[in-house]
Amino acid sequence: MAKERKKLDELFHDTLKDIYFAEKKIVAALPKMAKAAQNDDLRAAFEKHMGETEGQIERLEQVFELIEEKPQGKRCAAIEGILEEGQEIIKEYKGSPALDAGLVSSAQAVEHYEIARYGTLRTWAEELGLGDAVKLLDQTLDQEEATDEALTELAETVVNQEAQAEAA
Amino acid sequence: MAKERKKLDELFHDTLKDIYFAEKKIVAALPKMAKAAQNDDLRAAFEKHMGETEGQIERLEQVFELIEEKPQGKRCAAIEGILEEGQEIIKEYKGSPALDAGLVSSAQAVEHYEIARYGTLRTWAEELGLGDAVKLLDQTLDQEEATDEALTELAETVVNQEAQAEAA
Repeated sequence: MAKERKKLDELFHDTLKDIYFAEKKIVAALPKMAKAAQNDDLRAAFEKHMGETEGQIERLEQVFELIEEKPQGKRCAAIEGILEEGQEIIKEYKGSPALDAGLVSSAQAVEHYEIARYGTLRTWAEELGLGDAVKLLDQTLDQEEATDEALTELAETVVNQEAQAEAA
Repeated sequence: MAKERKKLDELFHDTLKDIYFAEKKIVAALPKMAKAAQNDDLRAAFEKHMGETEGQIERLEQVFELIEEKPQGKRCAAIEGILEEGQEIIKEYKGSPALDAGLVSSAQAVEHYEIARYGTLRTWAEELGLGDAVKLLDQTLDQEEATDEALTELAETVVNQEAQAEAA
């Protein structure tokens, strides 16, 4: 039992470092996405999520504290790849009416990565009896899911509005 | 309007190539994940998803046909990063009772990437009036969501069972 606990502890700690690195990359990428957005609602959504992401980083720091570890990132190849694709969209679709649709798509790939990671961390925190960590991770998970839903709605309106603007 | 349609068409086509590349990488990675799995139910889940993924690749080929394009992949840095993290887990947790928990976590990151991409493609297919593509993409999206839910259940049982095995 002790061995298992130790190992799941390690996996929890490793994954915490992975998402901590990812959140820091995301908070650095969001202003670029907001700046590139053509639609006002989309820009506002990115700006709102910047503030939320800062709160999520603080919550992760609280989880590190709960497991008596120093907040520390570990290179996360997944988020690097996801954000690289977002940068490509900005570059390739600059000036195109489809740019916003591409930005929403990139942002949803980011959200889904986070939903996967926070869902996993939440399950493990429960297994490890880290009740306070479960609460913190749940708060972030709820926020990410709400952001993803808002982006799904924006995906439809952004494409429609821009199609109409082109037609006018 | 014509310009917008053309651009959203391009974005749809680019993203189709991205997920086509990703699915081919996933189908190559799944046997390694199945082989690494310690838990029988988890191994069976990976094996089942191999067959599903082959069906998803065929559906993508049908979507390429619907838009009169040749099925072709385009390097997807996101899936490369996500699968790289999965490989690291297999390497770092080999022989550990937490390996299966790590494998489930990796698989869920893959599923969520696919859910994000298929959701986006589905929305765009609707905007572009590609009714037959919507149906095909919906079928895959439903499968991916069901796989993710099954993995969430496995995440709990796998960790529990292995904790018990260690304690015995």
